[in-house]
Order: sequence, then C-alpha cells, then structure tokens
Amino acid sequence: MIEAAVIGAGRIGRIHAANVAAQSGIRLKYVADVHEASAQELAQRHGAQVADVDGIFGDPAVQAVVIASSTDTHAPLIELAARAGKHIFCEKPVDLDLARARACADAVVQAGVTCMIGFQRRFDPTFAGLQARLAGGEIGDPEMLVVTSRDPGAPPADYIKRSGGIFRDMLIHDFDICRWILGDEARSVHATGSCLSDPAIAAAGDIDSTAVTIRTRRGLLCVINTARRAAYGYDQRFEVLGSRGMLQAGNVRPTEVTAFSGRNVSTDLPEAFFLERYRAAYAAEIAHFVAALVNGGPVRTTIDDGLKALELADAAARSFASGAPVMLD
Amino acid sequence: MIEAAVIGAGRIGRIHAANVAAQSGIRLKYVADVHEASAQELAQRHGAQVADVDGIFGDPAVQAVVIASSTDTHAPLIELAARAGKHIFCEKPVDLDLARARACADAVVQAGVTCMIGFQRRFDPTFAGLQARLAGGEIGDPEMLVVTSRDPGAPPADYIKRSGGIFRDMLIHDFDICRWILGDEARSVHATGSCLSDPAIAAAGDIDSTAVTIRTRRGLLCVINTARRAAYGYDQRFEVLGSRGMLQAGNVRPTEVTAFSGRNVSTDLPEAFFLERYRAAYAAEIAHFVAALVNGGPVRTTIDDGLKALELADAAARSFASGAPVMLD
Amino acid sequence: MIEAAVIGAGRIGRIHAANVAAQSGIRLKYVADVHEASAQELAQRHGAQVADVDGIFGDPAVQAVVIASSTDTHAPLIELAARAGKHIFCEKPVDLDLARARACADAVVQAGVTCMIGFQRRFDPTFAGLQARLAGGEIGDPEMLVVTSRDPGAPPADYIKRSGGIFRDMLIHDFDICRWILGDEARSVHATGSCLSDPAIAAAGDIDSTAVTIRTRRGLLCVINTARRAAYGYDQRFEVLGSRGMLQAGNVRPTEVTAFSGRNVSTDLPEAFFLERYRAAYAAEIAHFVAALVNGGPVRTTIDDGLKALELADAAARSFASGAPVMLD
Amino acid sequence: MIEAAVIGAGRIGRIHAANVAAQSGIRLKYVADVHEASAQELAQRHGAQVADVDGIFGDPAVQAVVIASSTDTHAPLIELAARAGKHIFCEKPVDLDLARARACADAVVQAGVTCMIGFQRRFDPTFAGLQARLAGGEIGDPEMLVVTSRDPGAPPADYIKRSGGIFRDMLIHDFDICRWILGDEARSVHATGSCLSDPAIAAAGDIDSTAVTIRTRRGLLCVINTARRAAYGYDQRFEVLGSRGMLQAGNVRPTEVTAFSGRNVSTDLPEAFFLERYRAAYAAEIAHFVAALVNGGPVRTTIDDGLKALELADAAARSFASGAPVMLD
Repeated sequence: MIEAAVIGAGRIGRIHAANVAAQSGIRLKYVADVHEASAQELAQRHGAQVADVDGIFGDPAVQAVVIASSTDTHAPLIELAARAGKHIFCEKPVDLDLARARACADAVVQAGVTCMIGFQRRFDPTFAGLQARLAGGEIGDPEMLVVTSRDPGAPPADYIKRSGGIFRDMLIHDFDICRWILGDEARSVHATGSCLSDPAIAAAGDIDSTAVTIRTRRGLLCVINTARRAAYGYDQRFEVLGSRGMLQAGNVRPTEVTAFSGRNVSTDLPEAFFLERYRAAYAAEIAHFVAALVNGGPVRTTIDDGLKALELADAAARSFASGAPVMLD
Repeated sequence: MIEAAVIGAGRIGRIHAANVAAQSGIRLKYVADVHEASAQELAQRHGAQVADVDGIFGDPAVQAVVIASSTDTHAPLIELAARAGKHIFCEKPVDLDLARARACADAVVQAGVTCMIGFQRRFDPTFAGLQARLAGGEIGDPEMLVVTSRDPGAPPADYIKRSGGIFRDMLIHDFDICRWILGDEARSVHATGSCLSDPAIAAAGDIDSTAVTIRTRRGLLCVINTARRAAYGYDQRFEVLGSRGMLQAGNVRPTEVTAFSGRNVSTDLPEAFFLERYRAAYAAEIAHFVAALVNGGPVRTTIDDGLKALELADAAARSFASGAPVMLD
Repeated sequence: MIEAAVIGAGRIGRIHAANVAAQSGIRLKYVADVHEASAQELAQRHGAQVADVDGIFGDPAVQAVVIASSTDTHAPLIELAARAGKHIFCEKPVDLDLARARACADAVVQAGVTCMIGFQRRFDPTFAGLQARLAGGEIGDPEMLVVTSRDPGAPPADYIKRSGGIFRDMLIHDFDICRWILGDEARSVHATGSCLSDPAIAAAGDIDSTAVTIRTRRGLLCVINTARRAAYGYDQRFEVLGSRGMLQAGNVRPTEVTAFSGRNVSTDLPEAFFLERYRAAYAAEIAHFVAALVNGGPVRTTIDDGLKALELADAAARSFASGAPVMLD
Repeated sequence: MIEAAVIGAGRIGRIHAANVAAQSGIRLKYVADVHEASAQELAQRHGAQVADVDGIFGDPAVQAVVIASSTDTHAPLIELAARAGKHIFCEKPVDLDLARARACADAVVQAGVTCMIGFQRRFDPTFAGLQARLAGGEIGDPEMLVVTSRDPGAPPADYIKRSGGIFRDMLIHDFDICRWILGDEARSVHATGSCLSDPAIAAAGDIDSTAVTIRTRRGLLCVINTARRAAYGYDQRFEVLGSRGMLQAGNVRPTEVTAFSGRNVSTDLPEAFFLERYRAAYAAEIAHFVAALVNGGPVRTTIDDGLKALELADAAARSFASGAPVMLD
C-alpha cells in the first residue's frame, strides 16, 4: 500500500484527493494547504491527516505526492519532493520560466523518481480513444491537426496577470495535444492573436484569442485556435487528417436529449467547464500514476513533456511579440 | 448514520453495494448471498461483514436492506424485511405473480416502511432530464410515446424459462417508462410478437420480439417495440410527441470520436449493455433512496409503481396469448 | 418522343408537369383541369395546350397520362385512360373504395397498359438508398420496422370529411412502406388512435393520432405511429431492425447550419412539408415512369401495390372501429 | 428576354448552360468552345447555336456572356466582353496575375457593365443561410473564423503546373469566404504548408497542404486549413465564433441513412466533389446574375471581390515563400 499526500486543497486538489482515495493500492495519508481550514476539511473527508510540506517530505512512509498548489509553488515543491525521494504527480505547468522548469527536470532525473505532469486531456476517453485508433493505423499517417480550444469565459484580470500569458496558461494543453497526436516535434511556430472580449485582458497585458500554426520536423501541420470566451460554453475538440481518413474528437454532452420545437432541433450544450468535461480524465490519470508506481512502469506524461509544451508556449509568445515565426531546433 | 445490508452479491448486487458504500450518511454493514464466497468477497471490498438474512433482519441496527437476489426471493424478502421494520430497496420485479406482489405491497403498507423498486431508468441523466423538461411544459401536453428497447443478445434458454416471459422480464421497465412519461394509466393494451432470433426461445415458450400498443384513459398513445437481439448493441431510446414539440432520449456512446474513412462517417456503438448504459442511473437511484431515508421524504419509484408495471405486463401477456386487446379499469 | 398529358393543374399536378417537361424522351402536350385558368397557366409555362379529358383520350398521339386531379376522379379517369390505351401515372389512392379500385386494376390488366401509382416515397433518395442496402443484405433479414409519419398540421375539416379517413388518406403511404421494406404481406392488423389536436377532426368523424401494428405472414413486425399535427414540422422517418444490424432513414434539413447559443446547440427543422421533403422523389418517380415507357420495363409501384395498401388501410379502419385486430388472408 | 452566350463547354460550362436554360427571363443563344464538338453537343441540348467569340461579341442581341473557359482566357474575354458592352459572369479567377486582373476591373468599370465572379460558395444554401443569420446578429459580432477546405484528391501534375499554385487555385474560394463572413479586410497573412500526399506535386513546384492565418484590420482572426487529398471525400466546412455564440456550416450528405452494424454507427460520406456539393449554389448564382440583369441591381460577387481574393492569394504565396507574414495596407 503506497502512502500519498496531496498538496493543495483547492478545486483541483480536491478532485485529485478523491481520485487517490478511490484507488486501491494507494492511501491518502496527508493533505496540505496554506489555508488550514481547506486542508482540514479535505483531510477529514478522506480520513487523512493535515500536515505541512516539511512534515510530508520528512515522513519516510510517504512515497508519492500530488502537487496541486498554485503555479509558483510547483517548481520548489518538485525539487523538494525529488530530493526527498518522493514520486511526483504535478499539475501543469512545471513552471512559467523554462530555465526553472529545466532545473526541476534535472532534479527529477538525479533523484530517479517518477514525475508525471497533469496533462489530463490525454486520459479523456474520447481523446485517448482517438489517439489509440490513430496509433493503430486506422487513418494512415497523420498529416494535419486542427485543435479548437475555448473556455466559457475569461478568468479575472488578477489571474491573467499571474498566468504567464495565454500561451503558457491556456495553450500549454493544446501544445501537448499537438506533440501527442502528431508524434513529432515542432520546427516552426507562428502565433497571432487579439483581445476581443474584454479590454481588461488587454490592460493586463494579454490577449484572449489566438491562432497558432505549428509545422513539424516532418512537415506535418497543426493549427490551434483558442478563445477565452465562448458564449456557448467549454469547447474542446480536435481533428486529425490522415493519409487514409480523418478522426474527430467532439465535445461531450450532459444528456442525450434532443428537443424539437417550432423553431429548431436542439441538443445540450457541451459539458460546462474542465471539471465536468474532464471528470473521467482526472480519475484515469491518477489511476495511471498509481498503476505506474505499483507496477514500476513509465508514466505517459513526463516532466519532459511538460518542458516540451512549455518550449512551444515560449516560442508562441515570442512569435506573437515579434510578429514573425519562431524556429525551433 | 444509517446501517444497511445488501442481499445478493451478483452482478447487480455488487453495483448496489459499491453505490451504497460511496454514499455519505449510510454504511454498508452486511452482505448476504447464497454463495458464501461471493458474499465474502463483496463484504471485504467494502469493509462489511457477511451475514445471512436472519442475521440481517435480526440486527436492530440495520435500518435498510437492498434486495438484489434472484427474482423468486424478492417477495419473501420484502415481507420479512417489512415485518422486521427495515426500509427496502428491491430490484424489479416485486414478483412474477401479481397477487403475490400485491401481498408484498400490503405488508409494506402495514409495516409503514419505505419500499423503493429499482426502476433505475427514471434516474438516468438523459431520461430524467427529458422528463423534467416535459413536466416543465416545454413541449405542451404529451400525446404519443414511442419506446424502443432492445437488448444486445438473448439470455440463455434457462433464464428465459424462469423469467416470467418477455413482457414481465424485459418490458416491465418500458411499462414503467410509459406510466412515468405519459403521467396516465392504461385503458387498453394490445401486444403482438414473434420469435425471430433463436428457436430455443420459442422452445422455452417465449418470444423475442414484441410490439405493444397502450391507449391511456385520456386517449394518449404509447407504442413499445422490443427485441432480445440487436446486433449493434443495447438500444434504449424513447421519444414523446407533445402538443408543442417533441423530446427524444437517445443512446449514450462511450466516446465522441467520429471517424471518416473512404467508406463512411462513423461513431461508436451505444454503451454495451445495462451495466454500462445505466451506471450513472444506478448510482443516482441509491443516492435518492438514501436521501429519502435521511430526509424522510417519499421515494420516486414505489412498490405501487412495481405493481402497476406488473399489471401492464400481465395484460400484455394475456393480449399476446388471446390475440385481442385487453381492457384495464 | 412520347407525348403526354397531365390531368389536374393543382399543387401536385404542377410538380408532375414540371418534372415531365424536364425529362428528355417525353413531351408535355396537354394540360387539363376543371379550372380553365389553372390549366391555361400551367400549359403556357411548359409550352403545352389546354385540353379536356375527351380531347386527351381521343388524341391518338397521346401515349401517357398523369392523373393528378381530385381523389374521386382517379377511378373513372384510370378506366377511361386504360380503355383509350394510354399508359397511366396516377396519384394515390386508386380509389377510397376497395371494390372500385379493384375494378380499375382489372381495366388496366385488360387494356395491357402500364399503370404506376404515385407512391413517391419509394423514390426518395434516403428511403430508396436504405431499401437498396437492405435488399443487398447489409443488415441480414428484416425483423421489425418502425415508421414515424407526422404532418406539420391537420388539413381543414372539409378535407377530412372527404378524405376517406386518416388510414386511407394519410397512412396509405406508410402501409406501402411496410410492404416495400419488409417484403412481406400482412397477416394481422391492429389499429388504435385518438383525436388529440383538434375537436373539429373528431366532429368530422376522424382521428388525428394513430398507432398501427402489423404482423406479417413470416411473423415480422411493423409499428406505425402517425399524427396530423407535429409542432416541429413534417416528420418522415423509419427504421428497420435486421438480424445483423439496423438501418434508419432520417429527416432531411434545408441547410447544414448548426448554431451554438448560450442555451443549446441547434439545427434546422426538417423540410417543411411533402412538397419540399419529396421534391427529389417526385422528379425520380416521373423519370422512372418515363424510363419504363421508353424501355418497356415494369414500373416499381403498380396498381396492385395501390390495392394492397388500400386493403391495409381498410383493415386498419375496421380494427379501429371494432377495437380488435383484423386478420388478412 | 435577355439573350446570352456561354463560352466554354467543359464541365462547369455545361452546368452554367443548363442553369441559364432553366431560368426564365434569359435565353441561351450561343455556345462557344475551342473544341467544336463540345460546343455542338451543348448547344444542341439547349436549343442554342454554336458561335465563336467574335460572333458572340459582334451580335448586338447578346447582352450577357458566361465565361467558363480555361483560366488563361478569362482576362482577354472579360476585356473583349466589356468593350462590346456585354454583361459578364466569369468563373474565378479573374487572372492569375494581379496586375492583369486589375486591368480587367478597369475595363469593366469603364464599360459600365455588370461583372459577376463565380464565387458560388456564397450561394450555397448552408453557407448563405449561415451568413444571413450572422448578419442578422444571431451570434453577435464575429471574432474568429475557421475554414476547412479539402479536396478528395489532387489534380494531375499538369494541372498543378498551370494552376498558379494552391493559394491562387484552391484557396481563392476560402479567401473570399473569409472576407464575406468576417466583413473585414486582411491586415496580415501568414501561410505555411507542405507537400504530403504526392511527390509529383512538389516536383511541379507546389504543395498540397496549407495552413493560413489572417488577421484583419479590426483584429479578427481567420484560420484556413486545406488539403488536396482527403481520403473521405470533399470536405467543405467553416465555423464562425461570435461574441454571443457560434455558427457552423457542415457538409451535405447524399442521403440521411444511418446504419448500425456490429462495429459502429455510420452515415454517408459528404457529397463527392464540387459539382455535387455546390449543385444548388451553381443554380442560385446564375439565378442571382439573371435577376440582377433583369432588375438592374448590383451583383453580390463583383470583380472587385475577385481582385481582393487574388490579393490574399498573392500575399499567402509570398508568405509561404519567405516564411514570414505579409502585411497588407
């Protein structure tokens, strides 16, 4: 029985804690949070104890930590955990600064611990199902990927300011999808964008709408379009054109009710936001992490994947700033 | 904290046990099964004890029992549970014999316990969502209901023989849908059918395909078509025509992948069978049962609903046997 | 070059005239109508002449007539046309009276002319496409057919009174679909129904909603549900369950626009009514008729098909009146 | 009655000729083609005469010409027609050379004739329906447009060589969609692409897959992805995100049959290629041209639209060649 700790008792920490608790083979021993009351409540729900990070890293019984605290704590916590010999599951991003993130990766390698980054989309049943069929050769070789990724509404300007910008904060998931689906690395990245929904976002130095084009080493094309505000909800789709066909990953609906009125035929909007849309994905990624620890296998989304996605985000941010495409080695 | 027992550790008993265990406000204390090993395994998974029914009914700490054992045990167990003052959740049907089922209902009334029958379809997100919108007046008054209900494959002939026939075994769910959606009771029932998929079903005295028409007291129409064998899987749909529109409840798919090949555009088959299709419904019905116990409210699918569905099944069986419609009071 | 006449310059006559005019191999020579002005206008549009029926049947150059006049004129016109040796395309029904319709069929046989009945649905691209795939064995043997057939709104009570009743007027098309798709004749017919939308229909001695079950000689099942009023428009669907799968024929939409609002995801309503829904079918049936005349082959919807559909309508009307199923030989 | 001539009796000329012939208010007087036999056959089908271009432009009775000959003849024919005072419908592109195309536009202005360019997609029922709803404010202001435009297979290398390159030959339609839907002009264009399907295309100096990003003066974004080869057929979709929702234009299917097998649920592939997909659009654009001539109104797709689309194609070609975005005034 692996003993684990969850650091961060916010929205996403609570989801990870519940998914850890529901797994056999692992036991949630500790919950930590800078807000004591949040840690208390979450620990109690799952029969765990409250601890601070020193307590967690100092307890030799703890083999694994789930890092779900704020972005700026990811890097120091990864390094502390690695040095303490704990296996790590960490929410994206590793860090907003690429050099800092690389230092974390080095620490992980030196410590020889497992470190999985929470690119949960790879574990979504629809996305994972598509990828498996693509990998199985169903549509031949991939040639072009079109990713549509839109949030139902923009976060507050305060969040925007600390977010690292839309490319690092929001598109990092889409960059991971690009690498995962095309199975190739970027050669060039071109990014453009606008602030169309809310001047507060521009005032915070960011944009809310982007169009990014990636050309890979083998010449495959990836087009990503994103928006911070889609009035109809959370829109998460991609489609990959292959030499023998196409596979599309569509949105998920809460129900399969279709209504026929005097005006139109309608169905539900997509699941409201990421907590609903990726509920199964969050459970599956934790199950995968635990299985990797129990069975000793590799994890599917490594810290190197985290670095690579961050490199793409950096390149996109530079391209947007300069107006010119950015070449990668 | 309510203490509960699950009787029957088969396929459906295991689902109910897991759903009870996942609820707060209730604790799974006992598991019983005629196969000791099954009971043992299930009890262990959820930290419960194995007991026999006498032990369960004799323990004053037990307030609720979930009956998921074989159909012929439902009636005696309901009566024993009622006399012991336990609240009851029982899988459909109450009994294959209507008089016997009525005796159970009397025992429940006399004991003053809550008795919920497992018509889980009412708790399916799609079906429940449709019903709520219908009840909210979205399409005016219901006028016609078309129910399509098909299994992926017929059960073994042995099961067929003990099943009470297709109308009592399979259509009982559809009869409940009819009453629930139209909000009216049947005035006449006409049933016809055939054995088309497997002569063993005919040899067992049953049919595998039915077409049932119900006309209600207010003149509303319900058409039910069922088949024991649909090569494409489990097909569970209905649609209700109202004075101002129509609402359709469609099948649920495992993923939202769409594939474009050189031949066609394809999506997943529906969820494979009832355990997959109604996973959320099984959880929701147990949550509803527990909430009713905790809060003291009524349950949505009573033993009276069980009787009424059985009356329709009986009427359909008689109509099929005689070739003529059967009138109900 | 075949010379042809269209009798009846109403809504459907105008469609047939245009489709005849657009065919090569046939020339529209005459148009007749009891309203001279309608005939005049239609004739002028297509460079044809106005004539009365005597003139048409008396002109030896005319080889084919298209009968699109009122229902009560179909039988006498078929007989006159047959005696004059003209090939006949006649709108459904042959006649509301079965004996009279049989007399027409006799006249046709004696005259040795081709007589095609306008069951245009068999020529709809979707319906015909489905039938071809079924006939090609794609889903094995057909077992059950579910037909949904709903009009956007009821005709005026005056029309209802002269219509022969909903089974002969509206369901005659659905009965033809049943025979065509299942490839088998009815053994028993059960019909029930209600008047739910408009008391004027009941006052005219008719109903507006029906549920009809047909069991064929081989035991196949067909369930037909119809309504005179669907608030969302013209609803024309059927699905056939086979031993190896299912084929569904869905509605056709004017456009493929999908709208995502803050409330739902919506598409167009189905094509508004039969003139729009079956535009391609009307063209294809006339093309088939002309090709049969030019090439000397048989037509796909014979006067015998017209009789058989009428027999089913009669049986359904008797079943509804008596409340009991009606057996057919 | 307007008298008209069609120049070019190939695939698209035959379609235009048939659509002209089916219009009232216009009469097809002449057909011209460098292949006499093609002209002869087409003229005969519609009761027209064969003529050469001198004969057409010299006949004062001819008021309108439809230019459907090879691309290199468009510019000289437009100029000759303008000087002869004929109204012009010309297939895209005006010319592959922008300066030459501008000279044509000058000639048209000087002559004061109507000149419509065949951007038939604007007349497709689905695309036009979407644009009308967008213009009606249904989704607020447009913010982002995603265009997917894929051919079923690449043309022969010979065609590729004379085509002006994929941006001028294939994407010109998509550039027109961009301007039409966003209602704004491009400020910057970035294009990238690859040759993935057939080395013969690369050998001919072209690519087969492109990803183009346009940012407009108001900061709106447009992403176009195209491929010369989609194994599943002709794929013509776009979607526009607005401040209050999204509108999608989907593909059109030959039939609405859905098949359920033991493997999946499938529907038809999209209409095979542009002749099938845009059949209604070709008819509607000619109807619009004729109506504009008869009623004296403006046409919706002017020669200026042709120039603007060509400017975008030029910019995209330059961007692809240089690797850098191209700014437009």
